[in-house]
Amino acid sequence: MKLIAVYLQQILKRFMSKLVIVGTVAFDAIETPFGKTDKILGGAATFIGLAASHFNVDAAAVSVVGGDFPQDYLDLLSNKNINIDGVEIVKDGKTFFWSGRYHNDMNSRDTLATELNVLADFNPVVPDAYKDSEVVMLGNLHPMVQMSVLEQMTSKPKLVILDTMNFWMDCALEDLHNVIKKIDVITINDEEARQLTGEYSLVVAARKIHEMGPKYVVIKKGEHGALLFHDDHMFYAPALPLEEVFDPTGAGDTFAGGFAGYLAKTEDYSFENMKNAVIYGSTLASFCVEKFGTERMVNLENSEVHKRMQQFKQLTQFNIELS
Amino acid sequence: MKLIAVYLQQILKRFMSKLVIVGTVAFDAIETPFGKTDKILGGAATFIGLAASHFNVDAAAVSVVGGDFPQDYLDLLSNKNINIDGVEIVKDGKTFFWSGRYHNDMNSRDTLATELNVLADFNPVVPDAYKDSEVVMLGNLHPMVQMSVLEQMTSKPKLVILDTMNFWMDCALEDLHNVIKKIDVITINDEEARQLTGEYSLVVAARKIHEMGPKYVVIKKGEHGALLFHDDHMFYAPALPLEEVFDPTGAGDTFAGGFAGYLAKTEDYSFENMKNAVIYGSTLASFCVEKFGTERMVNLENSEVHKRMQQFKQLTQFNIELS
Repeated sequence: MKLIAVYLQQILKRFMSKLVIVGTVAFDAIETPFGKTDKILGGAATFIGLAASHFNVDAAAVSVVGGDFPQDYLDLLSNKNINIDGVEIVKDGKTFFWSGRYHNDMNSRDTLATELNVLADFNPVVPDAYKDSEVVMLGNLHPMVQMSVLEQMTSKPKLVILDTMNFWMDCALEDLHNVIKKIDVITINDEEARQLTGEYSLVVAARKIHEMGPKYVVIKKGEHGALLFHDDHMFYAPALPLEEVFDPTGAGDTFAGGFAGYLAKTEDYSFENMKNAVIYGSTLASFCVEKFGTERMVNLENSEVHKRMQQFKQLTQFNIELS
Repeated sequence: MKLIAVYLQQILKRFMSKLVIVGTVAFDAIETPFGKTDKILGGAATFIGLAASHFNVDAAAVSVVGGDFPQDYLDLLSNKNINIDGVEIVKDGKTFFWSGRYHNDMNSRDTLATELNVLADFNPVVPDAYKDSEVVMLGNLHPMVQMSVLEQMTSKPKLVILDTMNFWMDCALEDLHNVIKKIDVITINDEEARQLTGEYSLVVAARKIHEMGPKYVVIKKGEHGALLFHDDHMFYAPALPLEEVFDPTGAGDTFAGGFAGYLAKTEDYSFENMKNAVIYGSTLASFCVEKFGTERMVNLENSEVHKRMQQFKQLTQFNIELS
């Protein structure tokens, strides 16, 4: 029976869009005002993959872990239909580890530890079967690693999305500019958009980033939602106001994963459909912050996503007749 | 001809909802990174009235000014169809004066001067013709002044809206609680909501304010928009992302004036219609910040408001079919 299921899955995949995700698969240790964790599953590719798994796409993660990485975590990704052929296991290496402590407002944090370990020498290898993926999601990593993934694609992707952070602006700005030139969508937070452009106004910052290459700019504002820019068009999705943000770790990656997954599934890369992708990204991110690390995302049902999408509609939609 | 016009105006007013506005009519002197002003027209009732003048309502301002207040400014309000019978003129007194300097981010400011002058002994008098107003807008003032206006109403208003600030929480908290008990809607900014309740989460803060009396709670988040709460329902209106915020003075009052004016005009005080009122408030506030003080609001055409409302629709509306 299991063989038949696997075989049917293989056939089904032929009809799905492919989404290749490069990013970290990692250990996180997190402290928030609500408590702290030991080393738990984390990493950009993990959160992106878990979010994208809610859409009917053939997703593959490209990453690296050490010999200390539990098989259970790899199985968890596989069971969510995330292909892990591109996740290299360096037997005698240690997995990337990040540790941080959030302040009371949950909007700022201190990094307590960053151990690159196997990430220091990471050479991403895109599996042959995914070199013709329709959508490429370049999770937050050194821009040269992101570029390497792009260069391995044998056919031009329909959409390339890049996520990055201030760290690469500080230490690899030229490389970052080189890869930004080659992408369609950038997702970046508000402070990073300001740093990258030297502009305080997000409208002006988005225009300057647009001039660097990406036709679409998504500025993530944490609890204040996300803005999508394209030419003179703007779209604003709020974050769902929550009683409690338990742990913001991975929320930005989850947003990107929902955004990429929805677009890959629908194969409609128009601005109008990107609005929907932003809403799906925001919806998934609103779950991510409810528990530590990936805990909420691992156990998230599609029916819950559907219900929260309806809440998002009620939160944002109004009915004024304008002649 | 002029007499006929005045007479027709009188007849027309019989079919309009009445809106009574209490608040300051004042001089402001403002410094921003873009420049500075001498003493110009300001005050909560001024901004609220100018915003409300875009709706077909019979609005009256209740306030006080000194003998130094230019007739031109009073005429300006009258010409916008704001009744000023309730604006007391203290001939030998000086008008309330506020001066402030905004920081580069435009989200914070230093108060340079606050001269209460005639405001120190202000006893508001609601004109008889407005004691049966459908909507009462209590602009930011001492809560006892706000209470006094409520007590003068001879018939119970359909809707009482109150705006306040942290200053009254610091020095007149008990009076503030007393008036909050008697109102339907409170408009308050995010930091003030946190101060009033001791809660960081705005969802929890709104619930606690709800328990203090108001059935509807509007939390203003400046450039991040506004949230409307009612029981378990939430609505989120973004602020229009702008290339440049020139001067934020009066934006919150303009929001409140648009909110109150729209509700008075439509006479529909449901949650669904309040969503529309929040959008109108946000739209009008987006104009207010484009120039110093009241300058933009004084010259704002209805056609411009209509056009920006359409931008707001595009900014926030999406089209996902959810079964």
